[in-house]
Amino acid sequence: MRIPLTPQSTSPLYQQIESYLRQGILSGSLPAETRLPACRQLAHDLGVNRATVENAYAKLQADGLVFSRMGSGTYVLPSNPLAEGIKNNPEKDWPLWQKSVQARSLKSKSDTVEEMLQAAGHPHPIHFASGVSDSRQFPVNEFRKVIQSVMRRDQIAALEYGEGNGYAPLRAGITRILASQGLQTSPENILITAGSQQAIFLVSQVLLKPNDIVLVEDPTYSGALDLFRTLGFQIIGIPMDGQGMQVDKLEKLLQQHHPKLIYTVPNFHNPTGTCLSSARRRQLIVLADRYNVPILEDDFVGDLRYEGHAQPSLKALDTGGQVIYVSTFSKMLMPGLRVGFIVANGPIYDSLLNFKRLSDQATSTLIQRALDTYVTIGRYQAYLRRSGQIFRKRRDTMLNAIQQYLPDEVSFDSPKGGLFIWLRLPQPISTDALLPVACKEGVSFVPGNFFFTDGASGEEWMRLNFAAQTEEDIEEGIRRLGKAMQQIKTING
Amino acid sequence: MRIPLTPQSTSPLYQQIESYLRQGILSGSLPAETRLPACRQLAHDLGVNRATVENAYAKLQADGLVFSRMGSGTYVLPSNPLAEGIKNNPEKDWPLWQKSVQARSLKSKSDTVEEMLQAAGHPHPIHFASGVSDSRQFPVNEFRKVIQSVMRRDQIAALEYGEGNGYAPLRAGITRILASQGLQTSPENILITAGSQQAIFLVSQVLLKPNDIVLVEDPTYSGALDLFRTLGFQIIGIPMDGQGMQVDKLEKLLQQHHPKLIYTVPNFHNPTGTCLSSARRRQLIVLADRYNVPILEDDFVGDLRYEGHAQPSLKALDTGGQVIYVSTFSKMLMPGLRVGFIVANGPIYDSLLNFKRLSDQATSTLIQRALDTYVTIGRYQAYLRRSGQIFRKRRDTMLNAIQQYLPDEVSFDSPKGGLFIWLRLPQPISTDALLPVACKEGVSFVPGNFFFTDGASGEEWMRLNFAAQTEEDIEEGIRRLGKAMQQIKTING
Repeated sequence: MRIPLTPQSTSPLYQQIESYLRQGILSGSLPAETRLPACRQLAHDLGVNRATVENAYAKLQADGLVFSRMGSGTYVLPSNPLAEGIKNNPEKDWPLWQKSVQARSLKSKSDTVEEMLQAAGHPHPIHFASGVSDSRQFPVNEFRKVIQSVMRRDQIAALEYGEGNGYAPLRAGITRILASQGLQTSPENILITAGSQQAIFLVSQVLLKPNDIVLVEDPTYSGALDLFRTLGFQIIGIPMDGQGMQVDKLEKLLQQHHPKLIYTVPNFHNPTGTCLSSARRRQLIVLADRYNVPILEDDFVGDLRYEGHAQPSLKALDTGGQVIYVSTFSKMLMPGLRVGFIVANGPIYDSLLNFKRLSDQATSTLIQRALDTYVTIGRYQAYLRRSGQIFRKRRDTMLNAIQQYLPDEVSFDSPKGGLFIWLRLPQPISTDALLPVACKEGVSFVPGNFFFTDGASGEEWMRLNFAAQTEEDIEEGIRRLGKAMQQIKTING
Repeated sequence: MRIPLTPQSTSPLYQQIESYLRQGILSGSLPAETRLPACRQLAHDLGVNRATVENAYAKLQADGLVFSRMGSGTYVLPSNPLAEGIKNNPEKDWPLWQKSVQARSLKSKSDTVEEMLQAAGHPHPIHFASGVSDSRQFPVNEFRKVIQSVMRRDQIAALEYGEGNGYAPLRAGITRILASQGLQTSPENILITAGSQQAIFLVSQVLLKPNDIVLVEDPTYSGALDLFRTLGFQIIGIPMDGQGMQVDKLEKLLQQHHPKLIYTVPNFHNPTGTCLSSARRRQLIVLADRYNVPILEDDFVGDLRYEGHAQPSLKALDTGGQVIYVSTFSKMLMPGLRVGFIVANGPIYDSLLNFKRLSDQATSTLIQRALDTYVTIGRYQAYLRRSGQIFRKRRDTMLNAIQQYLPDEVSFDSPKGGLFIWLRLPQPISTDALLPVACKEGVSFVPGNFFFTDGASGEEWMRLNFAAQTEEDIEEGIRRLGKAMQQIKTING
């Protein structure tokens, strides 16, 4: 092959070779399956170093234009009509089975809202829609050093498959932390998962099949609703009040619907921020026992209490193995670490473990080992103290700002912990209609209907995250929210 | 409270306080809900530093004996009857719903075998049952430095939730690597998963429901069989020969069973090591298209070729969006990293993405970012060259050892790549019966029946991993295997 080269050119020789061949391939003059000359041969023909030709070939290969077969040479690739342009366009003439794949909502609710806020283009947007706490608090460099020391210490073991139920020292550490929170269990009853989302997923898969009924607080965590809907469960809501789930209405629902699961968030409920009262906790366990229904307790921020007395978790009151407890480090740590856990007793533990193995074998050993080193009980307690102080102040800032900037008719309970204020607007403002106006003002929230079982109720409610923003931004955000509400009022009035 | 202290003791003061209180709690003299004195008060009473008392309380708390309520004091915890001793014993009087939870096999096949080998107690056991390649090849320290530099560079972003379908630069990098292997696709068609196990799991969940039919090669990968069984699918086997799946028998099965999926491992098949011939690849796609059945192509080691010509992947031949391709970095990298990927076109991509989000939100961002930096095309090619040389030698060592140490009647095909030799023993040796004898000799393998759809056929077969051991151990392991076969023969004869 003869390739015209210009040694005096500013473009290096390997680039000249590469661009000559690229033009040939793209124009079709070097059709698919053409074998390019061996590097050694071409280098000899052109009077250049072999490495120069190798560099040119490597670049073509990296761009998917040629294909090297070991011991056989380098060939021009056919261009694949699926590779470019068509993508996943639902209008294309896809195979029939593709058309029957269920179309589904693709984004989490808070992602949808955050995108709306970004799209509105405010120069300094303030996010109250987040479902997590403030990541800026996390000491990245300290954690980086922990990962380093774990890799130096454990070498290859830090990167191999670990135990299916999780790294044993981490399970023991979680046992100690739970004990310090009043929940006694043992490491054999802990199953490490990829965040609490996977924990809820595994429990759902093991206990329910499509069309089975699950009882949930109404409203409840939208991620659980999305999951239950996708898995084809029937979802029945239990009404709530300021004390959490109205357990006195539960017995009738149990008799009427024969549910396979009760899903509950008893502490600093998402979205309402309420805590289930002590008396109701005991009642709930008695009823679940009487009607033979497992309870899935989602304790996503049960430890983030800023005032008042802690309630025992449902799992701590469970003596018969009725309660499956799920929680996560994602709030204390970083959500991207993807480590949560299940506490379960009885035969279901092994079923969950088996399903975990079949879903993804095991959770990343390296991250588990790093967490084991990082999450000491001392660091955990220090985190609770520090974030308790910070988040409590932020909550108070938001409550004050609400009183200052929002109409007198809004109503809310002051949450004693967690991340959220659940705010009721005066009629006839719909939070769904308010959201785009608020985004234009540069502030977001999650509209209430995202959390209701029917997907429609609750349009007078909104969920505000007070933990993820600075006090300054909280005040400014609520001021903007007040402005947006003024505008809506004017339109409506 | 008066606690007798001995300042002259070798045991520090905080320990004396702690052990005094511990005895009180364990003996019941300090019953549950007892409020311990405030640290300040007790320190004053005992005439010690406040920190001394705090240390004692912290130790009790870490051990789950006391429980500190913020702003209220430290209380003795009740002991939880579920916390110790009872564990997950299936004999206990569990709630009824626990008893109906399906009992399931809990271990992967190779884990079961490895445990049997360990239990046999040989001082230098040799593992031929592994499903992965040789982890000792992996440069842990190089990877540690990559993680470091990624965390320094990306800071908090390395630990936050990432994109649901995976870190975009990593998806682009995978596109380039696939192109260098002859498969052109685009980053929007790649979905990062927690290993290829999760990839197969997601495809199964999106496309099939219980009692649906899946066609598989018979034998096939036991992890897929376990998964399909647990999800309640009906599994129909397609016979194989030296060219892979007998595609000429496929059409009848398609007509008869109306399957919802064809699961296939066309390259260096697990367990047989065969490659599907070029002609059959094209036939398979035509048939899947005609009968409107998606193909799930599991290309777990398609790049590990030691000789002969590469075949295009089924996905590379797919112009209509019929093929869903799954692969993993677990073999090149470390299995504990848990990163695999799906390549899919058409509406199913969004369904898979949605199901991924509901299963575990996303795969660890940190590991994805580290892989993006680590897995350059140059390093990937270098890995293929190096492991190609090493594994080829090991294969040849095993083949030679088989000829030297095993009876002449064994039969096998020499695999052109991958990790496994599929060995047929002379009748009437059953590999299931041979396994305990081999383990006593200090060598393991996976018995053939683990891989068959009926769980029973194939007892004359065994799978041997030639890639995970040194040449020395391979020779010694096969020698031991020969010895075990001699013993079985003697018993049988």
